[in-house]
Amino acid sequence: MQTDSRKFAERSVVIVGVGLIGGSIAAALRLRFPGCEVMGIGRNQDRLKLATERGLLTTWSDQISSALIPDGSLGIVCLPVDQIAGAVRQLLDAGCELITDAGSVKASVYAALDDVSGARFIGSHPIAGSEHTGFEHADADLFVNRLCVVTPMGAGTNDTERIVAFWKSIGSTVQQMSPDEHDRVLALTSHLPHIVAAVMSGCVPPELMRFTGTGFRDTTRIAAGSASLWTSILLANATHCVESIDAAERLLQRFRAAITTGDATTLESLLEASAQCRRLLKHE
Amino acid sequence: MQTDSRKFAERSVVIVGVGLIGGSIAAALRLRFPGCEVMGIGRNQDRLKLATERGLLTTWSDQISSALIPDGSLGIVCLPVDQIAGAVRQLLDAGCELITDAGSVKASVYAALDDVSGARFIGSHPIAGSEHTGFEHADADLFVNRLCVVTPMGAGTNDTERIVAFWKSIGSTVQQMSPDEHDRVLALTSHLPHIVAAVMSGCVPPELMRFTGTGFRDTTRIAAGSASLWTSILLANATHCVESIDAAERLLQRFRAAITTGDATTLESLLEASAQCRRLLKHE
Repeated sequence: MQTDSRKFAERSVVIVGVGLIGGSIAAALRLRFPGCEVMGIGRNQDRLKLATERGLLTTWSDQISSALIPDGSLGIVCLPVDQIAGAVRQLLDAGCELITDAGSVKASVYAALDDVSGARFIGSHPIAGSEHTGFEHADADLFVNRLCVVTPMGAGTNDTERIVAFWKSIGSTVQQMSPDEHDRVLALTSHLPHIVAAVMSGCVPPELMRFTGTGFRDTTRIAAGSASLWTSILLANATHCVESIDAAERLLQRFRAAITTGDATTLESLLEASAQCRRLLKHE
Repeated sequence: MQTDSRKFAERSVVIVGVGLIGGSIAAALRLRFPGCEVMGIGRNQDRLKLATERGLLTTWSDQISSALIPDGSLGIVCLPVDQIAGAVRQLLDAGCELITDAGSVKASVYAALDDVSGARFIGSHPIAGSEHTGFEHADADLFVNRLCVVTPMGAGTNDTERIVAFWKSIGSTVQQMSPDEHDRVLALTSHLPHIVAAVMSGCVPPELMRFTGTGFRDTTRIAAGSASLWTSILLANATHCVESIDAAERLLQRFRAAITTGDATTLESLLEASAQCRRLLKHE
């Protein structure tokens, strides 16, 4: 069976953590596959009831229990990175057939699951999101034409194909990588931007905020995100994040040297190289 | 006479450089003060004709000539920072009564005009703009509720009031500062964001661009701007830019240390401090 042609065949999907990403996965499934059961699991009963009333979930629970999870279910953990491995273990114990996640870091999750024999876990990272949080901002098309990285490590071909088919069925493009390669790449493309935005924001004292313009606003927008969520992400990918910081540091020093010496040729070529990289992105 | 109550009293405004900023000033004047002559000066006759046809200018010229400039004119130089002082000299020679500009750096312009005795120049920096260029994107309301810094240095009270009244009449809030204080503040709030965005963009090789998300896009948006324009700005404000780079560098190293040592408490407090700074901005 070709990965590309495998059809969506899930009868029951269990989503742990019904926030923006979990809620958007639920919305995407409910829109496209109304016959599929979508169970939401979380801590807050009121929130889960509300998400069910809004049609995102077919059922909900505030605990991960084998009595509630249908045979053959696909589990998807949409929790902060430091809570993923724990939820995966619980889903395994409760009888989920196969489990994936949506976390921004992959190797640390596998490491935390190293002792689970036969763990049927395949990591995923849909590169999609927004500055909003909560299922109220769920978008059934959040993953359409967006890249999802899938990191099968020792998983069987059928299981990998099942996860790939899942993401494609809700619109994603899928790229397979190793967990470590994922973490190395995302440290540059996602985690470093957060650090850089936070550094920029932290450099401007409150009384000078009125002198900022649209450039500052754009550059620092993601710095307003959750500090605790990002602490987990950066620490879970510490080695690669430090490598990325060092790369940024080296380039920053090249800018500094060109400005200090008044070397217009070098400064302009540095700026032009960065501008050309940025212009590769088609969508603003 | 109170600065706040001084009315717009210009009969003739000469704008050198009819791009986004110059064009928006022209549009703002034509909308609000149709009796005021608005002359555009630039190199490209076709562009100036087009701007006139579109109603931005009442007249145009491809040279700064005393024969063309009406007595009592206010001159506004909207050129790249390294071309401002030269244009100010020409406007002075051509008989402009008072001159201001719209450049991102102020002290270097004053320094370049140091030998001009009795130079009636008062620097301005409207903190407004967009990623677009050219008068086609001119916006008559670009300056409404945006801050304009005015840097009178040894100018007479009447002249200063005239420049302040000008910016207020097209909607700006005005703050007076010294040229050096302006440059120090803007190095942090505007020039450092450009450097940081360029560094971030330059750290991601082209083949990894597909792994970027909205965070990277926002953080690096301004890095796509004109390399030559920004080379001029950064070199004209080199000392303060280097100070800003060093401040960013120090904060970056604090993030690096917290990540290296796995110090979640410190990392979260750094991220939270940056997030709180960013949340001070009301408008997204």
